[in-house]
Amino acid sequence: MTSDFTEVARRARTASYDLALANRGRKDAALHAMADALLTRGPEILTANGEDVARAESGGTPPNIVDRLRLTEDRLAGMAQGLREVAGLPDPVGEVVRGSTLANGLELRQVRVPFGVVGMIYEARPNVTADAAGICLKSGNAVLLRGSSSARASNAAIVAVLRDAVAGAGLPADAVQLVPGETHDSVKTLMRARGLVDVLIPRGGAGLIRSVVEESTVPVIETGVGNCHVYVDRAADLDKALAIVLNSKTHRTSVCNSAESLLVHADIAEEFLPRVVAALQERGVVIHGDPSFQAYDGVLVADEEDYATEYLALEIAAAVVPSLEAAVDHIRRWSSQHTEAIVTEDVTAARRFAAMVDSAAVMVNASTRFTDGGEFGFGAEIGISTQKLHARGPMGLPEMTSTKFIVTGDGHVR
Amino acid sequence: MTSDFTEVARRARTASYDLALANRGRKDAALHAMADALLTRGPEILTANGEDVARAESGGTPPNIVDRLRLTEDRLAGMAQGLREVAGLPDPVGEVVRGSTLANGLELRQVRVPFGVVGMIYEARPNVTADAAGICLKSGNAVLLRGSSSARASNAAIVAVLRDAVAGAGLPADAVQLVPGETHDSVKTLMRARGLVDVLIPRGGAGLIRSVVEESTVPVIETGVGNCHVYVDRAADLDKALAIVLNSKTHRTSVCNSAESLLVHADIAEEFLPRVVAALQERGVVIHGDPSFQAYDGVLVADEEDYATEYLALEIAAAVVPSLEAAVDHIRRWSSQHTEAIVTEDVTAARRFAAMVDSAAVMVNASTRFTDGGEFGFGAEIGISTQKLHARGPMGLPEMTSTKFIVTGDGHVR
Repeated sequence: MTSDFTEVARRARTASYDLALANRGRKDAALHAMADALLTRGPEILTANGEDVARAESGGTPPNIVDRLRLTEDRLAGMAQGLREVAGLPDPVGEVVRGSTLANGLELRQVRVPFGVVGMIYEARPNVTADAAGICLKSGNAVLLRGSSSARASNAAIVAVLRDAVAGAGLPADAVQLVPGETHDSVKTLMRARGLVDVLIPRGGAGLIRSVVEESTVPVIETGVGNCHVYVDRAADLDKALAIVLNSKTHRTSVCNSAESLLVHADIAEEFLPRVVAALQERGVVIHGDPSFQAYDGVLVADEEDYATEYLALEIAAAVVPSLEAAVDHIRRWSSQHTEAIVTEDVTAARRFAAMVDSAAVMVNASTRFTDGGEFGFGAEIGISTQKLHARGPMGLPEMTSTKFIVTGDGHVR
Repeated sequence: MTSDFTEVARRARTASYDLALANRGRKDAALHAMADALLTRGPEILTANGEDVARAESGGTPPNIVDRLRLTEDRLAGMAQGLREVAGLPDPVGEVVRGSTLANGLELRQVRVPFGVVGMIYEARPNVTADAAGICLKSGNAVLLRGSSSARASNAAIVAVLRDAVAGAGLPADAVQLVPGETHDSVKTLMRARGLVDVLIPRGGAGLIRSVVEESTVPVIETGVGNCHVYVDRAADLDKALAIVLNSKTHRTSVCNSAESLLVHADIAEEFLPRVVAALQERGVVIHGDPSFQAYDGVLVADEEDYATEYLALEIAAAVVPSLEAAVDHIRRWSSQHTEAIVTEDVTAARRFAAMVDSAAVMVNASTRFTDGGEFGFGAEIGISTQKLHARGPMGLPEMTSTKFIVTGDGHVR
């Protein structure tokens, strides 16, 4: 453990003690101050971002990655607006989750409390820096931020601006800190900081998340990888099915809740396949199909790799299945347990699919794209958990807390 | 990954699919069948246990450990009764945790579902085998059990009896399995089985728990280590304080919710110290004290090691503190964040202590011994979590579940 990191983590812990006691009014005031500062000090952030963009471009970074890295006045305004929206959400801290008076008169309350110190490891987008800082602050957590080194100047500028704003609003600046160090060693240090860091949240591609999950001794909330399926049942309304398949696949391809595989019941394949193949191809989607799908022009051969792949692009794997059970078996084998959808008018089929599929979200006659904190009405979202411990699915502010029991007696002993 | 283990884990996964769909009636019938079988087939379990006890005795195992290993008809009856009590508890699976109809008409429900496959690693007591099997079955989880090798014959006999009972009640026998292999390698295999095992729960001493937490790639729920404090405030009722200190320390010393450190506000030290020192010593408690406590006969010198120690014995560390804040600082430094108690008649002091102390349970004018699933009214308890993710404090049946979102629409797309 480097002494730099230990020092930063200790300051975060001290800040977390203050933050845990800060009431909603103080935290919301800090969030508005952070939003204001992103706007008033936008020029210095954009200058720093310009350095990152120039370095990326001269290093031959692909244009779509450079675009994710680039900040503009509009994007800064979006980040500021995000912070104001977090200010508008209820404070999860202090919520009484359950309570009772025990037979012996002890008063039991289980109350939401912040985790303490949260570590965030994330990739190129510098807007995550402000989002994560805002969500952590509102939920009473100090945050240690480790963005990608390609965004280091942007992240440093954003954090400097946010820290000043937090301090100006009377809360500890050390509630928001960057993890020191540029190399991968600093990520490792963060991952091994059990006791100093309470929870680690990786946000990014499958490789990043896998490495954090495997190497971290700090408890991790795994987010995001989505190999999502749409199953079109024999009892589907085929118009709804077509709309849901197209929306799930093509509404936005680069996100974890987009569909990557299509399963069609054999009984309706003859009618549905020509429609869905034509409609997908018309929108530029490359289909990797099983033999039934391969009967159509332009459909490529699907192998196991295709069923396992999260394309995040205009590509989809497709197969015909003989039954709902076979669809469930396919999903159990290949899904990342993020979101699966069934299209059916048969209430028993819907009920069985929802019971048998073990994913964070199961959609019945709705697009996979609805698995989203905003769509679910949770407001800000720190990510979509695909693990089973603590939080599953879209994570809002309450998911950024732990609880404690407060038990009040009058000299009670056993 | 040994092929034996992989096979066992796959069978557990398959069993978990059936178990997740089993309704309460079927699970409760299986629990009663398991209880019946422990009694009717008690002789074969006691014979197997006799082997373990004889091996332990001839190997020079200390008598208190041999006692924990030993089963009797009474202890078997207790295990059976425990299973019947689990049958009497509500089924957590299917509980709707939250639900709403979104603005666009989508119906959102967040529903409790089993984890799937749970791994348990535990030490000598063979009764944990039946307890864990019962709690996992009721919460819809298949369980992989890894008890200590000193109890291997007992655990094998108990599992054989329970599996027959589960199968006889029409649920899959593979819902309850032993991890194959006798060596530490089999523990390692279990800890690295990410994807095959959903959650790992270690129960035992601090060393066991630390090694699981550090080596496991499977998500862990950390249980049990309790370095618990009692703080006697300047505004304490000293009679209540004395009763709470004595109960917290001496009611049962070998458990995680017993007190290991006593902090006394300086303003009442002159009056309280002679009383508490005499009362503790009268009950055979060895006091490791700071200079204020050392003024009393028989008090040993406390060093940092003492403040860090979970004695689990008739020993206590003790210090005088100048303020409530100093007590909180001491607790922040040394506590394992299990349970801390304050004794005070001052409502502001109680409120501040409860807010500032970040432990699974904070007791106000009550013994630390109340942090217990049974005392909290949760019924069966799989352990007391000292981590912040997922579950904190006593874990009952609901804590043995995850959730999923079921979202129902009528062709909804974004």
